[in-house]
Amino acid sequence: MIKVGVVGGTGYTGVELLRLLAGHPGAELTVITSRSEAGKPVAELFPNLRGSVDLAFSVPDSDALSACDLVFFATPNGTAMTMVPELLAAGVRVVDLAADFRLQQAEQWQHWYGMEHACPDFLEEAVYGMPEVNRAAVAQARLIANPGCYPTAVQLGFLPLLEAGLVDTDQLIADAKSGVSGAGRKAATGTLLCEASENFKAYAVPGHRHLPEIRQGLARATGKPVGLTFVPHLTPMIRGIHATLYARLLDSGRDLQALFEARYRDEPFVDVLPAGAHPETRSVRGANHCRIAIHRPQQGNTVVVLSVIDNLVKGAAGQALHNMNIMFGLPEETGLTSIALLP
Amino acid sequence: MIKVGVVGGTGYTGVELLRLLAGHPGAELTVITSRSEAGKPVAELFPNLRGSVDLAFSVPDSDALSACDLVFFATPNGTAMTMVPELLAAGVRVVDLAADFRLQQAEQWQHWYGMEHACPDFLEEAVYGMPEVNRAAVAQARLIANPGCYPTAVQLGFLPLLEAGLVDTDQLIADAKSGVSGAGRKAATGTLLCEASENFKAYAVPGHRHLPEIRQGLARATGKPVGLTFVPHLTPMIRGIHATLYARLLDSGRDLQALFEARYRDEPFVDVLPAGAHPETRSVRGANHCRIAIHRPQQGNTVVVLSVIDNLVKGAAGQALHNMNIMFGLPEETGLTSIALLP
Amino acid sequence: MIKVGVVGGTGYTGVELLRLLAGHPGAELTVITSRSEAGKPVAELFPNLRGSVDLAFSVPDSDALSACDLVFFATPNGTAMTMVPELLAAGVRVVDLAADFRLQQAEQWQHWYGMEHACPDFLEEAVYGMPEVNRAAVAQARLIANPGCYPTAVQLGFLPLLEAGLVDTDQLIADAKSGVSGAGRKAATGTLLCEASENFKAYAVPGHRHLPEIRQGLARATGKPVGLTFVPHLTPMIRGIHATLYARLLDSGRDLQALFEARYRDEPFVDVLPAGAHPETRSVRGANHCRIAIHRPQQGNTVVVLSVIDNLVKGAAGQALHNMNIMFGLPEETGLTSIALLP
Amino acid sequence: MIKVGVVGGTGYTGVELLRLLAGHPGAELTVITSRSEAGKPVAELFPNLRGSVDLAFSVPDSDALSACDLVFFATPNGTAMTMVPELLAAGVRVVDLAADFRLQQAEQWQHWYGMEHACPDFLEEAVYGMPEVNRAAVAQARLIANPGCYPTAVQLGFLPLLEAGLVDTDQLIADAKSGVSGAGRKAATGTLLCEASENFKAYAVPGHRHLPEIRQGLARATGKPVGLTFVPHLTPMIRGIHATLYARLLDSGRDLQALFEARYRDEPFVDVLPAGAHPETRSVRGANHCRIAIHRPQQGNTVVVLSVIDNLVKGAAGQALHNMNIMFGLPEETGLTSIALLP
Repeated sequence: MIKVGVVGGTGYTGVELLRLLAGHPGAELTVITSRSEAGKPVAELFPNLRGSVDLAFSVPDSDALSACDLVFFATPNGTAMTMVPELLAAGVRVVDLAADFRLQQAEQWQHWYGMEHACPDFLEEAVYGMPEVNRAAVAQARLIANPGCYPTAVQLGFLPLLEAGLVDTDQLIADAKSGVSGAGRKAATGTLLCEASENFKAYAVPGHRHLPEIRQGLARATGKPVGLTFVPHLTPMIRGIHATLYARLLDSGRDLQALFEARYRDEPFVDVLPAGAHPETRSVRGANHCRIAIHRPQQGNTVVVLSVIDNLVKGAAGQALHNMNIMFGLPEETGLTSIALLP
Repeated sequence: MIKVGVVGGTGYTGVELLRLLAGHPGAELTVITSRSEAGKPVAELFPNLRGSVDLAFSVPDSDALSACDLVFFATPNGTAMTMVPELLAAGVRVVDLAADFRLQQAEQWQHWYGMEHACPDFLEEAVYGMPEVNRAAVAQARLIANPGCYPTAVQLGFLPLLEAGLVDTDQLIADAKSGVSGAGRKAATGTLLCEASENFKAYAVPGHRHLPEIRQGLARATGKPVGLTFVPHLTPMIRGIHATLYARLLDSGRDLQALFEARYRDEPFVDVLPAGAHPETRSVRGANHCRIAIHRPQQGNTVVVLSVIDNLVKGAAGQALHNMNIMFGLPEETGLTSIALLP
Repeated sequence: MIKVGVVGGTGYTGVELLRLLAGHPGAELTVITSRSEAGKPVAELFPNLRGSVDLAFSVPDSDALSACDLVFFATPNGTAMTMVPELLAAGVRVVDLAADFRLQQAEQWQHWYGMEHACPDFLEEAVYGMPEVNRAAVAQARLIANPGCYPTAVQLGFLPLLEAGLVDTDQLIADAKSGVSGAGRKAATGTLLCEASENFKAYAVPGHRHLPEIRQGLARATGKPVGLTFVPHLTPMIRGIHATLYARLLDSGRDLQALFEARYRDEPFVDVLPAGAHPETRSVRGANHCRIAIHRPQQGNTVVVLSVIDNLVKGAAGQALHNMNIMFGLPEETGLTSIALLP
Repeated sequence: MIKVGVVGGTGYTGVELLRLLAGHPGAELTVITSRSEAGKPVAELFPNLRGSVDLAFSVPDSDALSACDLVFFATPNGTAMTMVPELLAAGVRVVDLAADFRLQQAEQWQHWYGMEHACPDFLEEAVYGMPEVNRAAVAQARLIANPGCYPTAVQLGFLPLLEAGLVDTDQLIADAKSGVSGAGRKAATGTLLCEASENFKAYAVPGHRHLPEIRQGLARATGKPVGLTFVPHLTPMIRGIHATLYARLLDSGRDLQALFEARYRDEPFVDVLPAGAHPETRSVRGANHCRIAIHRPQQGNTVVVLSVIDNLVKGAAGQALHNMNIMFGLPEETGLTSIALLP
C-alpha cells in the first residue's frame, strides 16, 4: 500500500485527485493539507466524497508528509518548490500537479510565472511526467512535473507528426478550447456562471503560460525549436479540452491514420479514433483517456488533428495517478478504469 | 458470474446500465438488443464505452435472451410486457426499468399509459424494486418493476414521515425538478439545447404518469390513500432530480433529524445530511446515492424535505443493479461504489 | 427629458438598468458612479454597451447627483439609506433597487439585514414600487423601494387569490427557482460556473431575506398576517425566476382563470396565459413581463400558480423604469417594449 | 411602410426575424407562412411574441405574397428557389436567408447541397447581401442571397487583410465555433441538450457547406482563388459564433490595428475593438454587431483575428433587415439598435 499525502486539496485538481485515490486499490491517503480549511472534514467541502473520504484537512506538517511514500502537490504555482527539497531529502517521492518543475530553464520559468524559482537546481532532475514520452524516466523519478492540461492535449496530438518529421514545424497552430474548471475553484468574476456560460471567447492570445511548456515538449520531439501559435479559448462547460491542431504536411504520401495508430498502439490511455471521426469531450468526461482523430480536409496539404481530454483527469489528477502507478510498479491502469459519464 | 441481457440499450438509461455493468465484477453482459441499431458496435453509438464494451447491438432473439440469468428492459413503456411472460417461463429473471409493472391496477395503468396492458396477470407478482422498502421481496422476485426517477426521490423523502404518522397525508406537496435526461434520448424539439437550456418551466401540472406511482407507494406506507400534489419541472442540466417536499406536521414535538437518521441508518444508498444542510444534485452525479436534508423553517408546522438523486443512477440504472445484487445474493454495493463527479 | 443618475452601476442590476436607459427615449443618463471603477468607461466593463453608452464611471459626488431629476440606486443593501435623505432634501426623486426601504419596520429590517438602519424615519414615506398594487402612490412618490425579484414573482402570482379571499392564508407555499444572476456579479465560489452549472439546490431554507418582504406584501393584500413557507432554489441558468405557488382553496367554485384575467386586464406587464399553459422563463428573458398560469390539478382543492419573470428586468431594472415612467407621467411602456430573446 | 411577407417562420431564423420586424418602425409584417403550423397563432409557438405579433401562420399563397413589397425566405435550403422566379415576376423583392442563391456556380451548388438547382439563371442576378462588401448592389437588388452565419464572421475578419494583400492566401485557417442554434429548431438527437451541453466537438472537418461560400467571398476580395482550411465546432451555448482566424503575414511592417479601423470606420455594424482585446460572443447576443480584434502573438509572422457575431442576428435575421433597410432607402440602423443582452 502506497502511503500518499496531498498538499492543497481544496481546488478542482485536489478534489479530483481525492476521488481517484479513494477508488485506487493500492494507495492509502494518509494526510491532506490545507491551511485555510484545516480541521474541516474533506467531505464537508466536497459532498460527493461523503462516505468515501473520512479525513479532515490539516495544517501542512513536515513530519506527517515525510512519513508518506509519495506526496502530490495540488497547490497554486510557487508552493511546491518551497517544500520539495525537504521532502526529497526525507526520501519522499513527489508529483507536482502545478507548474513549478515543468520548464527546464529557470529564467524562462521566472519570465512566465513572474517569480523567482526557489530551487532551480531541481529543474534538471525533475521528470516531465508524460508517460507516453517519458515512461522509463518516470519509473525511476523522485520528482515528477505533471504536465499542464493544454500541453497534454496538444503534445499528444502533434507528437506522431513531429517524431516522424512529416510537418513544417515553423508554422504549427494549436487552437485549444477548455472548460471553465481549468481556471480553478478560486472566486473570480470572470468564471462566474453569469460571465462564462452562454459565452465563448479567446484569452491570453498574446501569450499563455502553457506556450513555453508546449514548445519545450515539441522541441524535444523534433530536436530543434518549433514555431507555434497557441490560442486558448474559454468554453461554457465544466470539464474538457478540445485541441484543434493545424500543420502543413511536408510529405503528403504517408498514411497518417496508420502512423497515429502505430504510435499509440501500446498506450493504455491514448485512443486513436477511426478515420473520419470527430472526438467529443464528453467521451472522456471523468476518464483518463485522450481520444484523437486525424483529418486531411479536401486532401490538401494541411493536416488537422483533433485531440480531447478531461482537463482534470488526463490533464491533471489522472495523469498524476498514472505516473504514481509507473513509479511504484503497479499495472498502469490501476484505479483509472472508470468509464466516462455520458450523458 | 451472472449472465446478463439488456433489451433496448440505445437510450440514456441503457447507456448508463452498460457503463455500470462494464464495471461490475459479478455480471457479464452477454447480449444487448436494439432493432434500430442491430449490427452496430455499442461503442460506436456511445464513444465513452470504447475499450470497455465490445458487444454490438443485436436483433432481439428469444434464444439468446433465454440463456441469460437476468434480463434488464431499458425499453420504452409497453415493450417489456410483451416479452416478460416468455422469459419468466424460460426461467429468466427480469428487471424492467420502464413502467410496465409499476402500477398494481391494470385499469389505472391503462388510464395513465394510454394502452391496454399485455399481461395484467403479472402485475401482482411484480415486486416494486425499491430496496429501502421491499428488500426481502426483491431477493425472491422473478420480476422487478424498477421505480421511476421522480417516485424514487419523492418516496425516499416522504417515507419516514409517513411511516411514523407525523404529517397530514391529505395535503402533501412534491415540487420536483429534473434534468433533461429524464426525457430520454429521443429526438424532440422540446429537449433541444436551444429550447431547454437557459430556461425553466413546469410541465404536466394537470397530471404526470409518476403521480399514481408515487401515490401507490405512499399509500402502502400509510395504509390509506394520500392526497398529493405533484408538480414536475424541467431544469437546464443533464442529470439530477431535486425534490422539495412539503407536509403539515401533526406532531411538532418529534426530532425529525433523528427520525430520518434512524430510518436510513442501514441503507447503503440513502445519506441523511446533517441538520441545516442543502443537498446539491451534483453531489450524486453518476452515483447511486439519495441525499436528504430535513428542515422546519421558522420552527413552524410545515416540514420541508430536500431529496436529491441522479435520475439515471439511483433513479434508474443504479437502482436496477442494486436490485440485481439483492436478487443474486451479492453484497449490495457491488459495482455501485463509484463516487459522484464533482465538479 | 428626465435627467437620470445611477449610483453603483457595476453589478448586473446596474448594467441592465444602463441597457434599458440607453434605449429609453425620455431619459438621459447624466452620471453613473462607482468608487471601484471610477474613471473607467462603462463600455469597457460591459462591452455590450460599446457604441450605446459613452459615459465613464465617476466617484459619487453630491453635486452631480443633486442635479438629477431621478437617481437610481443599484448598490448593495445598506448604501442607499446613507445618501437618500440628502438627495431628497435637494429635491431629487429616488428609486432604490436594493432592499433599504422595502420593509416598513426598522427592527425587522435590522433583524434580516444585520445592520442598523441609517434613516428609519423614511421607511414610512417610501412607496413599495409594485405598480400593480401601488400605482397611484408611485406617481406621487419621492422615494421608491423597488421590489425584490422573488417578491415580485411570488406576490403577482398570489395577489388575485388573496385579494379575493379564496385561499387559506395560513398555509401558503412558494417554491421559487432563480437563475444565478440573482446572486449578483460579486466574485464568490458558490456562483462559479463550475459550482452552479449542472447542479440544482435549495438554499436559505431556514430563512431568506425576501421572506419578510413577501409576507408584508401579502399581509397588505389580505389585511392580516399570512403563513408562508418560502423555499428559494438556485437554477443553472443566468436569468429568470419561476415561482411555483401552492394554496388550499377555501371556495372551489370560482373560475380562477377568469379571476386572474380580470385582475390583470389593464396591466401592461402582467400576462395571464391561457388555461392549461406552462410559462417558460425564456419567454420573458430580457423583457419586463410577468407571465402567469393557473392550475387546479385533478380538480382538487390545491391551486397551483406558475409565475415567471426575468429577475433583472421585471424583478429589478425594468420595474424600476416602469416606476420612473409612472413618477414622471410618461406612458408606462416607454422604453420597455423590447421582446424577449428566444432562443 | 414596407409590406413584408415571411415564408417559413417556424425556425430560429424565423422567430428572430419576427422579433426584429415587430420592433422595426418602417416595416409591416402582413403574412407569415408555414405549411405545418398553418392556422396557429405565431405567439402560441413562440411565447416571447405574445402581445407583439398577432398574426397566425398561413399556408403559402401566391396572391398574399405577391402583394408584399419584400418577402423573406426563412426556409430550409431548396425552397426559395422554387418560388423566387414567380415573386420577382410579380415585382416583389426577395431576401433569401437560406443558401439557394449564395453560390454563383450552379454545379458547385448542386455538389454541396445535393440537389439540382431549380432556377440557375437567377444565380448571376442574385446579390450576395453582405453590406460591408456589396452595399451599392444591395440597394438596387431584386434578389438578395443573405450570407451564412460562419461566412459572415469569417469574411469580415479576413477581408481587410486580403484586400490589402498582406497575407499568404494559400494557407488561411478559419477555426470557427458556433452555438447550437446554428443547427436549427428541427428535432434531432445531436442537438439535444443532453448531447450538446457539457460537450465540445468539431464536425464536418472533411467539408462543410459554408466552405465554398467563404472561398468564393475571399476570392472576390483577392481576385484569385484562396487556400482555406475551415473547421467548424459545436459549442455548448445557444447563440454566438466565434471565428479564430490565422494567416501568415507577407508584410510584417503594417499597423494591422489601423488597417482594420480604417476599413470599418463607416460601418455601423462592425466594431473593431482596441488593440489587445478579446471579443466575447455575449457582447453581441441579440445585437447586429460583429466585433473584431487583431493579434500578432509574440510579434511573429502569424496574424490572429478574433471575430464574433450572433449567428441569428448579424449571421441571419439582422443582416437580412440591414439589407432591407438598404434596399428601401431607410437609415441602415433602423430597427437594429437594440443592445446585446448581458449577462
